[in-house]
Amino acid sequence: MTDLTVDFGNALDAEATPGVSEGALERLDERVGRAHETITAGMADGEFGYASLNLPERTDADRITGTVSGIDADHVLTVGIGGSALGAVTVSEALGLGDRHHTLDNVDPAETRRLLDSLPLDRTAINVVSRSGTTAETLANFLVVEEALEEAGVDWTERTIVTTGQEGPLRVAAEEYGLPALDVPEGVPGRFSVLSAVGLVPAAVLGGDIEAVLDGGRAGREALLDGGSLFDYPGYAYGAVSYALEQRGATVAAMLPYAESLEPFAEWFAQLWAESLGKDGLGQTPARALGATDQHSQLQLYRSGRHDKLVTLVRPRERPEVRIPETEVEGMRYLGDTALGELLDAEFEATEASLAAADQPNVRIELPRIDGPGTGRLLFDVEAACVLAGELMGVKTFTQPAVEWSKRASRGLLGGGEFAEADAVAEKTTRIVGDE
Amino acid sequence: MTDLTVDFGNALDAEATPGVSEGALERLDERVGRAHETITAGMADGEFGYASLNLPERTDADRITGTVSGIDADHVLTVGIGGSALGAVTVSEALGLGDRHHTLDNVDPAETRRLLDSLPLDRTAINVVSRSGTTAETLANFLVVEEALEEAGVDWTERTIVTTGQEGPLRVAAEEYGLPALDVPEGVPGRFSVLSAVGLVPAAVLGGDIEAVLDGGRAGREALLDGGSLFDYPGYAYGAVSYALEQRGATVAAMLPYAESLEPFAEWFAQLWAESLGKDGLGQTPARALGATDQHSQLQLYRSGRHDKLVTLVRPRERPEVRIPETEVEGMRYLGDTALGELLDAEFEATEASLAAADQPNVRIELPRIDGPGTGRLLFDVEAACVLAGELMGVKTFTQPAVEWSKRASRGLLGGGEFAEADAVAEKTTRIVGDE
Repeated sequence: MTDLTVDFGNALDAEATPGVSEGALERLDERVGRAHETITAGMADGEFGYASLNLPERTDADRITGTVSGIDADHVLTVGIGGSALGAVTVSEALGLGDRHHTLDNVDPAETRRLLDSLPLDRTAINVVSRSGTTAETLANFLVVEEALEEAGVDWTERTIVTTGQEGPLRVAAEEYGLPALDVPEGVPGRFSVLSAVGLVPAAVLGGDIEAVLDGGRAGREALLDGGSLFDYPGYAYGAVSYALEQRGATVAAMLPYAESLEPFAEWFAQLWAESLGKDGLGQTPARALGATDQHSQLQLYRSGRHDKLVTLVRPRERPEVRIPETEVEGMRYLGDTALGELLDAEFEATEASLAAADQPNVRIELPRIDGPGTGRLLFDVEAACVLAGELMGVKTFTQPAVEWSKRASRGLLGGGEFAEADAVAEKTTRIVGDE
Repeated sequence: MTDLTVDFGNALDAEATPGVSEGALERLDERVGRAHETITAGMADGEFGYASLNLPERTDADRITGTVSGIDADHVLTVGIGGSALGAVTVSEALGLGDRHHTLDNVDPAETRRLLDSLPLDRTAINVVSRSGTTAETLANFLVVEEALEEAGVDWTERTIVTTGQEGPLRVAAEEYGLPALDVPEGVPGRFSVLSAVGLVPAAVLGGDIEAVLDGGRAGREALLDGGSLFDYPGYAYGAVSYALEQRGATVAAMLPYAESLEPFAEWFAQLWAESLGKDGLGQTPARALGATDQHSQLQLYRSGRHDKLVTLVRPRERPEVRIPETEVEGMRYLGDTALGELLDAEFEATEASLAAADQPNVRIELPRIDGPGTGRLLFDVEAACVLAGELMGVKTFTQPAVEWSKRASRGLLGGGEFAEADAVAEKTTRIVGDE
């Protein structure tokens, strides 16, 4: 059993402004119970979106490992964007494989060229991911990567894995060239797909233990199913407290992990939260941060700015040991013969206390350690928190209509069809200061 | 002359909610004129903080290049945190040197070990930066790095550069071991120090043209001195519009550069903005993003969430050319024989238009290209914007009192002295869900 704890003591109204009272949470828990029925019924029926919470059970690690086993590679280059990249990066990094997992999740020509020039292409697996198989950035990059491999004398058809839906150009290409292919699971939006092939292929290619990640997800799923109350299940505790605090004015969700290997987790969280809950004039704005680094940057604002933020501090209970050598230099001596992890944990606790002393609400999430099970559990519980928050807010958690507008506009601008949205671009109001 | 433009057409009240009227801006411009007098007088007197805006004139590129010339290195490892690291990373990345500039700006044992294991230590320059010379994270990492070099049989005293103030443990160490040393300039807070040795040493070691960066800064400074109105100088336009929009409810500042090499710029901005303006219950919360990647993540929220964000889109007018190969695959053909940069620019314009169509305020910043002068100009003008915004808000832009509390608490926890703040840590209110 992989445990995870959520501590919301510093988000109670006795400690923080805004804060929520125990009484309000007890009343809210009745709504959590009803939302739990909706969520578990959706899971049982495999309903769109809710089906995401079944992935730890449904994903077949052996099938993923088997499918990629024909590709011998030291590096993986993921070609995908948004939900097709962030989860995979999060998993690889948490498993310590981040140095060998690279992504093309943008269409910046300078970065694309830099990356393709720096990789040993004959030792790199190309991991192309798009649910629809029509994502413009992903297809454009895929064409550029294919050409780069050809120019380097590498047969791209022998090094490419495709993860996509049942139809679309990518599925067609996979069949035409006989590429190993995996399915984007049905009923699962991209940002909820990390515990499927979408999130696990790169780690599998690099020899990571993806079954362990699924184990962590399963522990979260069991805790969810056993729960039904915000006072029992940490995922619901986090989702309900976030909702209650947003209602009371905490419209920013600052995610502050104290571990470099969880930096992509903060990015993944930002997508999950913004795209799921940012609708109907609601939704917290995610602010991604990193402890202790951002203490020297964002903490001034978090402590003395508006009381409009819920800061979430995340840490593992156990870290690798790196000792700080002893020193005789005055003013440095107190650091000698401690460990870097002790210093980091002291900073974690100091930051948390400094926010509390300023009545700024914050929540602590702890996991046993940053490994496969810990990561799987964290990802699952935060997904469950997001689904619960969406139920409580009354928004359509699993859609993203506002993303589509600009897709049509950019497609129109590139001559990929007639779209009224493209005309709006030409009508921009300008008010320019400076010489062009 | 390196130009930069700020276009606030989409932040006017005719286009956006919240938005500012032309009339309100004209009235505000009278206050901008008075603030300009304060700013230029502070610059002339070298007053604390305002002195930062003189750095393009005062920084001696030859002295920096000369000081580091004795160190022959393929890589630079910067040991510093916050203002001692972010600016340097921003400059190196913009100059295309980011792959060889590494940072230890955290005390995560896993990351420290990973980085030290992966670097060729005998070909790496160690760049230690701390104004006070007492920053715990920096000193701890410096001790660990010293030991790692010794264990690898490398004489760290021959590969280490120190940038620090006139006193403190680092200055003592530099003198004791005869290390090349540069000064953190007087009167300049860390987050405003990018256009000094603090921001330029790594690029100088790696052969970058740091004089070109200063050239860009000088162009910004001349434009500031020639200006005095938000309608003339782009830096003031950005600062004044940000202030006006925050007053009207845009309490989040989303920074969205459309260039991977400006990703650290968004981090640098986040520090500058949060630490300078986040005080007295005021200050926008910076949200760092990256185009086009975050269109698939944050755009849903930016378009359909609360109207509490000012989104700033930044792009170069000129990009390197990477063609997208032609293809016969149905549904991908429209991408063929365009360039990645065209696709990225189409997405930039589409995102901007999609925000405008949803009445969400946004500002466009454009620079000629991402190179030394363009970067120097961008950094300078955004610093000037921040200084102006601080004047208009009436906050103490150049101090960061809230960061100090947690420094004392963590020092107390580690046994580095008696601090009342450390006791507050023990008194934390806990409300834990989940098994520990």
